[in-house]
Amino acid sequence: MNAQKALRIVIVAPDSLSPDPADTAALVEVERSRSLRIGLLQHGYNIVAVLPIDPFLPERLAQIQPDMIIVDAESQARDTLEHVVMATRDARRPIVLFTDDEDTSHVGAAIAAGVTAYVVAGLAPERIKSVLEVALARFRHEEDLRRQLADARNQLDERKVIERAKGLLMKRQGIDEAQAYARLRKTAMDKGLRLAEVAQRIIDVADLLG
Amino acid sequence: MNAQKALRIVIVAPDSLSPDPADTAALVEVERSRSLRIGLLQHGYNIVAVLPIDPFLPERLAQIQPDMIIVDAESQARDTLEHVVMATRDARRPIVLFTDDEDTSHVGAAIAAGVTAYVVAGLAPERIKSVLEVALARFRHEEDLRRQLADARNQLDERKVIERAKGLLMKRQGIDEAQAYARLRKTAMDKGLRLAEVAQRIIDVADLLG
Repeated sequence: MNAQKALRIVIVAPDSLSPDPADTAALVEVERSRSLRIGLLQHGYNIVAVLPIDPFLPERLAQIQPDMIIVDAESQARDTLEHVVMATRDARRPIVLFTDDEDTSHVGAAIAAGVTAYVVAGLAPERIKSVLEVALARFRHEEDLRRQLADARNQLDERKVIERAKGLLMKRQGIDEAQAYARLRKTAMDKGLRLAEVAQRIIDVADLLG
Repeated sequence: MNAQKALRIVIVAPDSLSPDPADTAALVEVERSRSLRIGLLQHGYNIVAVLPIDPFLPERLAQIQPDMIIVDAESQARDTLEHVVMATRDARRPIVLFTDDEDTSHVGAAIAAGVTAYVVAGLAPERIKSVLEVALARFRHEEDLRRQLADARNQLDERKVIERAKGLLMKRQGIDEAQAYARLRKTAMDKGLRLAEVAQRIIDVADLLG
């Protein structure tokens, strides 16, 4: 068993409670699902929910806030994945897709869409733990890159906004750059706002003030 | 066989030509290496070199420019990985590590250091192709993020440099911001340089010009 806190996992799977006994592929899929869940439990993971694909999926994921989402949907993998990616767009989670489909032509699109691990024919129970740990490390690494990117873009945007606001002030009030900057700063301090926020407000209302 | 152009793969492996016949672990490792290489060839991959870890590794990788580097070094995985990451620091490549070691405590560090795929006990020949394709898609995705990050930081840096140079000009020549900007632009056009380059030169020599 795991010494660290058990990962809270949500499985997203299409509804397949009672497959037609004549449908061999469906039976294989059900059996595979079962062995995946047993493997997860045996490794000490906490399956907090098995969710179907329905309009409530985004809401449920937001409520549960799982540590990881496993897509278990062999024959409907692409469709299911699309729903999960959409549902986690605003609050990203590690998404692991297990599939027996050897056609890897959609891998690039899946990864670009936000899939953390794309595991083909990788369901051997002894591999589950390492696959999930690698996926988690990968997710954190990518989130870190994304955060750095968001920070850099944000700083760039703020600089542009401050520049524009300074320019507006200089032109309207016939003052120089240093003075414009000083006024921006003073307003920011007086109102308890960030420099970029003051700058944005100036730009927002500049037209109104004619 | 693969219709697309075969990936050019370099394997980095510690020298283990003639293991002691009494050393069972070493013999297992040699056999594993052999089956990995056979699997790669059977799937149509092009093994362009098997390189040892030595001081020439960075130079050799730079010459060969492989599409992917596979680290095949069970017992010396961490050490080998470190060398490969160092050797590809300036020209990143997808790095795939295969290992039978179930201890995943170093996964996070390995991924942060630049490992694209960390595959534990994943050597089954039928999985090689999908593992490598996923790794390649993953690498491209991450490179894209890194490129965006580098772009954003670069733009930010350039803005800062231009700001500083404008400030210097305004102070020294007693001109306003618009004039300072106009002079920067004119110099850039006259010299066929980018604005940020002119700005950097101004900053570089400002002290010299007293």
